[in-house]
Amino acid sequence: MTGAAQVLAEPEPGGVIDLNADLGEGFGRWTLTDDEALLSVVTSANVACGFHAGDPVTMRRVCELAAERGVRIGAQVSYRDLAGFGRRAMDVPSDELAAEVAYQIGALEVFARAAGSRVAYVKPHGALYNRTVADAEQAAAVVAGVRMAGGDLPVLGLPGSALLAEAERRQLRSVAEAFADRAYTAHGTLASRREPGAVIHEPDAVVARSVAMVTRGAVTALTGESVPVGARSLCLHGDTPGAARLAGRVRDELRRAGVKLEAFA
Amino acid sequence: MTGAAQVLAEPEPGGVIDLNADLGEGFGRWTLTDDEALLSVVTSANVACGFHAGDPVTMRRVCELAAERGVRIGAQVSYRDLAGFGRRAMDVPSDELAAEVAYQIGALEVFARAAGSRVAYVKPHGALYNRTVADAEQAAAVVAGVRMAGGDLPVLGLPGSALLAEAERRQLRSVAEAFADRAYTAHGTLASRREPGAVIHEPDAVVARSVAMVTRGAVTALTGESVPVGARSLCLHGDTPGAARLAGRVRDELRRAGVKLEAFA
Amino acid sequence: MTGAAQVLAEPEPGGVIDLNADLGEGFGRWTLTDDEALLSVVTSANVACGFHAGDPVTMRRVCELAAERGVRIGAQVSYRDLAGFGRRAMDVPSDELAAEVAYQIGALEVFARAAGSRVAYVKPHGALYNRTVADAEQAAAVVAGVRMAGGDLPVLGLPGSALLAEAERRQLRSVAEAFADRAYTAHGTLASRREPGAVIHEPDAVVARSVAMVTRGAVTALTGESVPVGARSLCLHGDTPGAARLAGRVRDELRRAGVKLEAFA
Amino acid sequence: MTGAAQVLAEPEPGGVIDLNADLGEGFGRWTLTDDEALLSVVTSANVACGFHAGDPVTMRRVCELAAERGVRIGAQVSYRDLAGFGRRAMDVPSDELAAEVAYQIGALEVFARAAGSRVAYVKPHGALYNRTVADAEQAAAVVAGVRMAGGDLPVLGLPGSALLAEAERRQLRSVAEAFADRAYTAHGTLASRREPGAVIHEPDAVVARSVAMVTRGAVTALTGESVPVGARSLCLHGDTPGAARLAGRVRDELRRAGVKLEAFA
Repeated sequence: MTGAAQVLAEPEPGGVIDLNADLGEGFGRWTLTDDEALLSVVTSANVACGFHAGDPVTMRRVCELAAERGVRIGAQVSYRDLAGFGRRAMDVPSDELAAEVAYQIGALEVFARAAGSRVAYVKPHGALYNRTVADAEQAAAVVAGVRMAGGDLPVLGLPGSALLAEAERRQLRSVAEAFADRAYTAHGTLASRREPGAVIHEPDAVVARSVAMVTRGAVTALTGESVPVGARSLCLHGDTPGAARLAGRVRDELRRAGVKLEAFA
Repeated sequence: MTGAAQVLAEPEPGGVIDLNADLGEGFGRWTLTDDEALLSVVTSANVACGFHAGDPVTMRRVCELAAERGVRIGAQVSYRDLAGFGRRAMDVPSDELAAEVAYQIGALEVFARAAGSRVAYVKPHGALYNRTVADAEQAAAVVAGVRMAGGDLPVLGLPGSALLAEAERRQLRSVAEAFADRAYTAHGTLASRREPGAVIHEPDAVVARSVAMVTRGAVTALTGESVPVGARSLCLHGDTPGAARLAGRVRDELRRAGVKLEAFA
Repeated sequence: MTGAAQVLAEPEPGGVIDLNADLGEGFGRWTLTDDEALLSVVTSANVACGFHAGDPVTMRRVCELAAERGVRIGAQVSYRDLAGFGRRAMDVPSDELAAEVAYQIGALEVFARAAGSRVAYVKPHGALYNRTVADAEQAAAVVAGVRMAGGDLPVLGLPGSALLAEAERRQLRSVAEAFADRAYTAHGTLASRREPGAVIHEPDAVVARSVAMVTRGAVTALTGESVPVGARSLCLHGDTPGAARLAGRVRDELRRAGVKLEAFA
Repeated sequence: MTGAAQVLAEPEPGGVIDLNADLGEGFGRWTLTDDEALLSVVTSANVACGFHAGDPVTMRRVCELAAERGVRIGAQVSYRDLAGFGRRAMDVPSDELAAEVAYQIGALEVFARAAGSRVAYVKPHGALYNRTVADAEQAAAVVAGVRMAGGDLPVLGLPGSALLAEAERRQLRSVAEAFADRAYTAHGTLASRREPGAVIHEPDAVVARSVAMVTRGAVTALTGESVPVGARSLCLHGDTPGAARLAGRVRDELRRAGVKLEAFA
């Protein structure tokens, strides 16, 4: 509690945090994420827009639930790849990728508005997220798609990524996120999923790391060092069993540590 | 020319007409409609939204061309059926159909706005158009989708159809259209495509009938009678060879007959 | 046990039964059916072929498991409708429907053969199953597709359906199935899903009815009469929670009643 | 003519050639290749199998025409990418790619057999073709898919490619092809499409180069040298206007030069 008090007394990175999770990742008959439970935890919902997951009925329902609970709605844009759940990197020409991103944002906007809300930010999904960490061309195409969709939607992504750099270059707000259940390297970047220990499965560890990242702006790297992690949002995973419950625990412990949960957008 | 003068002096049905055609009906590598040529003829463009045809790049380009030329942009919504080009009637539950219609309108709206325009109306495509002539449940679902997409978009369709009745019931403007190249029955309804002579291929006949429908509000039925055809818009087909040229002839002859070409929306 | 002894002494309809269930109904990231558990129960696996569900990796895996366990592999063909899980009836022209059916059978055959087995029968899924009960044109198209795919694959379907009649007309073996968890009318047809009580959820009732249908060739109708139900196969549902366990109970009770479980193909 | 006579007297690489082209590359309402005209020219038809193009009705029709004319049928397998026409390289995990390749071969096999023929070889399309030139992992996955589909289908591809090397490693026949309308580097590899002059549009040049490659086993590189080109098949393009006519000219000139046109499979 002392740490939390310090945070409140001396505002520092992590005193306020947004919790985001991927939602609406079913398609027709298939469901994946426990949307209802997660929407009672997160402050921002990355809603699938139909390209890797997300049918119109689900998009509508998730937007309604999110609006009811005051959760911000973000467009979780993806490569067009239902069969691969958007996890297959694709060499999409820039003009196509930009238009595909805009298409998805527009489709989601209809349901957000129908629910009395708005699309408030954009976050790429899966392989598009990973690709735009370093691929400046695709990052620029995603940002061009956001621009094409109108307004000044913030872009949510990895600190130091090409995506956030491109967003800033085009005068969009870039929002950095940290991951509750991912290991970090000594450089403060995410450990590759291929490395052992890259994904943290132990619930207590996920909770403790989340609190540390938010209240102290730092996390213990795979190699043992404490590395700084500056983030305005914390990504919780929603597609694993027990995800909603773990997300609830992270939220509760953050609150207990005096952290204010608040959407960035 | 006297007739035309009369039209202008005494406003009557058909003195003003909108010309609409289906555009952007390619998909990725495939093209179908000569969008550029048709956009120099029509006043309203029914733009495919991705469910039966229409990829994001094409949607964007057609919207840009339409906006440049002052052509109104309409959402040509369809069943989700790329393989069948939206020509297979489908028993889609109402909540799914409504959400699918809204999704398509939202996606197109992004490109219309990016081009400095707006989606100005909605017209169902293919089997959905035909089905909603008599199927009140699907007609209501389409209108619910239009309502869900927000605003008060007019609905373009067949006079006397369940679709237009539903649109009116939900306080949307209904706009009746006539077909330049389709035969009519003695009741003023469209002759079934299965009947011989249902589609008029002879260009001179298409032109003459178009002028008659617009300036006299009547057309000769398959059985020889003159039947009234009241329509605010005339549908020209764009997916046949020579379509753009024939559309241009219809436009020229209508102008020569003193008809004012003007979008309804 | 006496009843079972009778069955064995005097062979009658139902002394031997096939148990079939829909399998492999996931798609990419999404799963639905507990394929592994069901494959230890059924004698025939209706494997989804990619049009309503079923990606190639899943098709391959299900075929391998089925082959290992001596379970027959059937092609569960469907309308092309991933978004609607094949539950939306579609007006597909006969030549398209036939070719689509053949395409699905061919795709599955590759995985069946790779596993050392063969596609041994065909069963339509969802809306195509329901539509071909009475629609002779689509029934004929499905059978034409089976014929196009070569061989003389049996067709599994509802007794009295247009589908089975068409199969016989084209010299294919028709195999009638009964449903473990569906209510029957006094005429021995399935009660419409819209009627209350049409689907039987109570596990004990499902088990008891299954045994009655198989050992006595009869079941109690919704209206109380005993109606004859002749079937060579019993359909178990696999896409509900507890499905595999219930299927196992049905199998155990059938065995206890002296019924021989044996694929028809 | 002397050169041709020599070829016949002393069999050398190129005295016999196969002509292959991509066919059936429409989808539903959309057409692209002039299948009928090309099938009267080529000896091998690379038939699209539904993943980048190719609907079941088209696949069936092309197989029937090919069988009638004695043209060999090959499976033109692709990434699952209708929107991008299979031209977007994708990071598909090996097990998925192998199963997707097998699925496509199986689907086509049904139509080849229904027409009294067989799938006689496999050739990857577009981005999958280009990717497997150097990517050994994807090349191995494609070959694994061919193996999974059964038999010993030859693989058609670029000389020196990882794909052909993998095919040989797994005891499949590898067949090298040359391109009638592509420029070559001094190393005998294809000039990148980004280089000026990489695609040869002038019909006379295409014809002359085709004859040179086949009868002399050599072609003039972009940099002026004569470089050896050993190929058992010559790829003609079918998706450009005038393609069928140009293909016919190539065939005629090859015959005139004494070359025997004969499928490799």
